[in-house]
Amino acid sequence: MTDFTKTLQDTFGEKVVTLRGEIPEKYWNDWAGLPATEPLALARPSTTEEVSGLLAACHAAGVPVVPQGGLTGISGAAHPQADGIVLSLERFDAIEAIDTDAGTITAGAGVILETAQNAAADKGMMLGIDIGARGSCQLGGVLATNAGGNTVVRYGMARDHVLGLEVVLADGTVIDGMNTMLKNNAGLDLKQLFIGSEGLLGIITRCVLRLHPNPPAKATAFLGCADTASVIALLRAARGALGPMLSSFEVMWPSFFHFMSKGTGLGSPLDGEHGAYVILEATGFDAEATRGAMENLFEKAFEDGLVEDGVLANSVKEERALWAVRESPAEYETVLGPLVPFDVGIPIAKMDEAVTRIEAAVADAFPTARSLSYGHIGDSNLHVVVNVPEAGRAQPEKEIKKIVYGITRELGGTVSAEHGIGAIKRDYLGYSRTEAEIALMRTIKAALDPKGILNPAKSFDAGMAA
Amino acid sequence: MTDFTKTLQDTFGEKVVTLRGEIPEKYWNDWAGLPATEPLALARPSTTEEVSGLLAACHAAGVPVVPQGGLTGISGAAHPQADGIVLSLERFDAIEAIDTDAGTITAGAGVILETAQNAAADKGMMLGIDIGARGSCQLGGVLATNAGGNTVVRYGMARDHVLGLEVVLADGTVIDGMNTMLKNNAGLDLKQLFIGSEGLLGIITRCVLRLHPNPPAKATAFLGCADTASVIALLRAARGALGPMLSSFEVMWPSFFHFMSKGTGLGSPLDGEHGAYVILEATGFDAEATRGAMENLFEKAFEDGLVEDGVLANSVKEERALWAVRESPAEYETVLGPLVPFDVGIPIAKMDEAVTRIEAAVADAFPTARSLSYGHIGDSNLHVVVNVPEAGRAQPEKEIKKIVYGITRELGGTVSAEHGIGAIKRDYLGYSRTEAEIALMRTIKAALDPKGILNPAKSFDAGMAA
Repeated sequence: MTDFTKTLQDTFGEKVVTLRGEIPEKYWNDWAGLPATEPLALARPSTTEEVSGLLAACHAAGVPVVPQGGLTGISGAAHPQADGIVLSLERFDAIEAIDTDAGTITAGAGVILETAQNAAADKGMMLGIDIGARGSCQLGGVLATNAGGNTVVRYGMARDHVLGLEVVLADGTVIDGMNTMLKNNAGLDLKQLFIGSEGLLGIITRCVLRLHPNPPAKATAFLGCADTASVIALLRAARGALGPMLSSFEVMWPSFFHFMSKGTGLGSPLDGEHGAYVILEATGFDAEATRGAMENLFEKAFEDGLVEDGVLANSVKEERALWAVRESPAEYETVLGPLVPFDVGIPIAKMDEAVTRIEAAVADAFPTARSLSYGHIGDSNLHVVVNVPEAGRAQPEKEIKKIVYGITRELGGTVSAEHGIGAIKRDYLGYSRTEAEIALMRTIKAALDPKGILNPAKSFDAGMAA
Repeated sequence: MTDFTKTLQDTFGEKVVTLRGEIPEKYWNDWAGLPATEPLALARPSTTEEVSGLLAACHAAGVPVVPQGGLTGISGAAHPQADGIVLSLERFDAIEAIDTDAGTITAGAGVILETAQNAAADKGMMLGIDIGARGSCQLGGVLATNAGGNTVVRYGMARDHVLGLEVVLADGTVIDGMNTMLKNNAGLDLKQLFIGSEGLLGIITRCVLRLHPNPPAKATAFLGCADTASVIALLRAARGALGPMLSSFEVMWPSFFHFMSKGTGLGSPLDGEHGAYVILEATGFDAEATRGAMENLFEKAFEDGLVEDGVLANSVKEERALWAVRESPAEYETVLGPLVPFDVGIPIAKMDEAVTRIEAAVADAFPTARSLSYGHIGDSNLHVVVNVPEAGRAQPEKEIKKIVYGITRELGGTVSAEHGIGAIKRDYLGYSRTEAEIALMRTIKAALDPKGILNPAKSFDAGMAA
């Protein structure tokens, strides 16, 4: 293999290919926290031709390739393997064009999400994809994992923003699908195949994304409800009253909110305690109408008994304060200790049952455990983080996963709503997909990457981890 | 083959399988108007098991299968072939569930679009897919062709409405992907493969679609602009001012509007003549705010010189009148004579050039010809219908197609924005897709349908027509 990587370096140059022994530790891991692994070589191409050449060489030699973006994924899809090379897209960092008439941005896969957001904002437009890792994650990774975030209820998943993609297949074939039109029904919509495929079917090098007009007005409310049933009724009322103005609908159950508001010292915007807490956000194009719609909804919900108490933000500072506890994930480990995080999806009708059963089952198995539940309920997305205090760094991951994923499966949910399967959820893919579905995924993989060089042993790939 | 179809009938019963000689003429054709063809047999299954059994039998025998829905497609994707069977989904006509909390409708592929729209409306919700053929087209066909329509600018293509699909593969394998959750990143999103695949990769039997809250308020304007550049500037202003309230933005060029308003006797809502006509529609959740936003936009556009003249509808009757000429496609043949219709997509920046060049090139080649141009410009979608008066029924289709698709190719457009490729645009797929793209489509086809029994010789299929 040393011969192979040396030849690769000779062909593409030292600027593009770095050999084992010289590879910065940053590339040895992503945020999933698996054991750091130095790959055979690191390739940092800056042109589509280089990506094509690198893949063709690896394909010919049967050498595994792990694509990397901003390394912020928490499912381990970008985790290197010792017998393969890492292909980083970081040098595809050009914003090539912004077309304000068509509402599109054309950019390289290595552009940082926040950079793209800012470039759009500079032209008076908005990129509707937003996730916590915006300052580090790259567009290619955002698309390859079909990332979600806090505004999915309004703007959809990453997939919904993609108009065009340039992708390089395992054998080096370049698929130029840089479409800029909203409608294009000329044969299969190939880009759909690569979005959310976690690097198993091809490597995204460039993209065309939709931009939206930036709604200048915002109204944010923090509400206390009696229970999950009230929250679901409130969601329905909010959809009916706000329509497309509804931009966030975040729920925090007491397990999460009471513990984190105390633990972080941030406190609660409300005086009393409630059965569930909701952050409701509306955005619009007219400040008065947006605020008015939110006030009407709030009053009506209060009258109808859907809401027990609540506050509306009167300033950006107050807005931030209402989001503070929800946006404290960086504090989780500090407040809670080592944790096992979940990102399941649950049909809305089963959400109440899911939260109750998961928290109870974890407590049953580990009486001292803490399960904190919160989520993007409008998108059927439930986050749970679990900590067993006495276990320290050796959290009983397997047992906790069996409980949470088992209940998710029984309720017809998904083991990953937004973070993907990557390396760490492979054993549970069958909880949410039928055998026939997984077989079909593998049929497609075999057709596109017959030698199985792209991100082996990740997601739905049949191969075993090295 | 008589043996095969007889066995099929013996196995599935006379209620399900009708043999050649007994097949009603309705199934011999779709709206594309190709020569009527009686298939070997007609299968009308009503359960997924029957579809699976029928496909397994055809797969084993290598007999072609053409799926049919409401037969309203105008690209010939549902046109039967003489050596194959037709599989109609019309008996999958049950609306299984509507969940107003989750905002979903679960239905069979044979449900008429309008039936689904009405069922949603009865529950206070809205299905955001709407096309002219709503009274005849079926959900399965709408999804298999990724249909567009007049509200794409607000609600997206058919694809954007799909949460879950049940699909039967060529060999009879059932893919149960009846997901109801907005977010599900557990492996490949397989449904994306079948949406818009025109029946080449599998047969859609059931679906879960998103519902939206129904915006009760509407404001409609009919505007006259100086030229296409003003229209594009107006589109940008409308997006910025109305945001997600913008629900339609239809353009009619003089070639279309002057001719059709006179020919139909419907007249114009405006006194003078203009360089382009726009129907602008906003929908919202507050009547006053919706009307107010439209009035503000109109005033501002007038001040900025983007609009020369215009009217706002004051009643539903007036609303209908503003749409009348645009919604007169059934009159085209009467007013214009036999026509060659186009459904191209053009990047917005090239739209002006496209209209000018296409109309001029057709006039150059056929001095007496009429080219009428109109479209959903917000979606980059341009419709052109061409008639050469002296040619009668024998319109010079090939020559006209070469002109229109040739200019479309030069401008980086697509030969089909929304109607699909089907049987009639196969020769032009390469105008809008690269060789590598078409090869990849065929690789996927070969992996999913190795015997090539599903809708052969349609869209991107490599097979030759029978």
